Amino acid sequence: MNTPAREPQQERSRTTRRRLIDAAVTCLGEFGWNGTTVAIIAQRAGVSRGAAQHHFRTREDLVIAAVEYLGEAQVEQLRTRAAQLPQGQARLEAVVDLLLNLYTGPMFRTALHLWIAASTDEALRPVIVPLEARVGREAHRVALELLGVDEDRPGARELVQATLDLARGLGLANLLTDDARRRTKIVHEWARVLGVSLPQRSGLSS
Amino acid sequence: MNTPAREPQQERSRTTRRRLIDAAVTCLGEFGWNGTTVAIIAQRAGVSRGAAQHHFRTREDLVIAAVEYLGEAQVEQLRTRAAQLPQGQARLEAVVDLLLNLYTGPMFRTALHLWIAASTDEALRPVIVPLEARVGREAHRVALELLGVDEDRPGARELVQATLDLARGLGLANLLTDDARRRTKIVHEWARVLGVSLPQRSGLSS
Repeated sequence: MNTPAREPQQERSRTTRRRLIDAAVTCLGEFGWNGTTVAIIAQRAGVSRGAAQHHFRTREDLVIAAVEYLGEAQVEQLRTRAAQLPQGQARLEAVVDLLLNLYTGPMFRTALHLWIAASTDEALRPVIVPLEARVGREAHRVALELLGVDEDRPGARELVQATLDLARGLGLANLLTDDARRRTKIVHEWARVLGVSLPQRSGLSS
Repeated sequence: MNTPAREPQQERSRTTRRRLIDAAVTCLGEFGWNGTTVAIIAQRAGVSRGAAQHHFRTREDLVIAAVEYLGEAQVEQLRTRAAQLPQGQARLEAVVDLLLNLYTGPMFRTALHLWIAASTDEALRPVIVPLEARVGREAHRVALELLGVDEDRPGARELVQATLDLARGLGLANLLTDDARRRTKIVHEWARVLGVSLPQRSGLSS
């Protein structure tokens, strides 16, 4: 049934879906979980409530799509930026800079709203936990790849995990004040520590 | 005017104040900033609304007192636990274990609620930012002392800061699921890294 007439409609449908997801991300960051309803998201997206509910039956469905989108966007952004990093001596610090700045944008605030809401909302929790686990695993995989680490070496897995946990802690520290100057110094020192302590597979500094 | 008759009243007043602060901490953790009003706190504390407003004129006043209390309680708890730590070889990992578990309790959830609320609430933000800076400085001071670090050595300050940022990241990771097993491995590895990378003043392992 792939007639020419269907194409534009499918595309319209994709655009609507995407606008709803974008609006959901914005609303979650602005109003939190409690303040974000399908009606408010639809209004922000410029979509009728009926059309919104055609795409996403419940608020939970929309949030699942939004979190998945955020996770994928983050990993994609990471890969794009990583492709532009220098090779050689300077690479390790550039990679660490990238990783430790992962959670300093508005996406992190949205994620925080959801985590906190899920920590007390019994309906939201089972939705968020497996999603977060998946997004977290993907971030770990990319970090491992960028740092060029052999995960079989003792301690390597934990140091990569600690790098991402540190990144989330730095994201928190950046929530209320611009923490960029302090973070830059931590990036420098963390890169030095990883250079000494992290057994590398592919010789980042070669 | 320190007559015997005044003593019990002062004590009652202190008890009421303390009950209001405890209730504020509980309510913030449970309902977040938006859901926490003076009326709800008073009810939880078993205190009349008038009495609550005698002690704390506004919700902001109560929250300042609650955050200060949380910060002091945390540092006090840290000192008490630190006093019981072993000396010698085992001390460094025990200290790291203490620090990286700082933000895994219910107090952290309360703090998170406030940080997120302050990130979008223009009235709350100027209240929370200086308070958090003060609490953060105190945590840094204690961490420095426990790790026995000479902060004048290059990189030492950043590694102690990174340890506390990592602790907050681990607190986030523990919000939705029990992350204790993974955290224990990170504690072990981080203690090893600090043992190698952190210039120590007072010879922790001596």
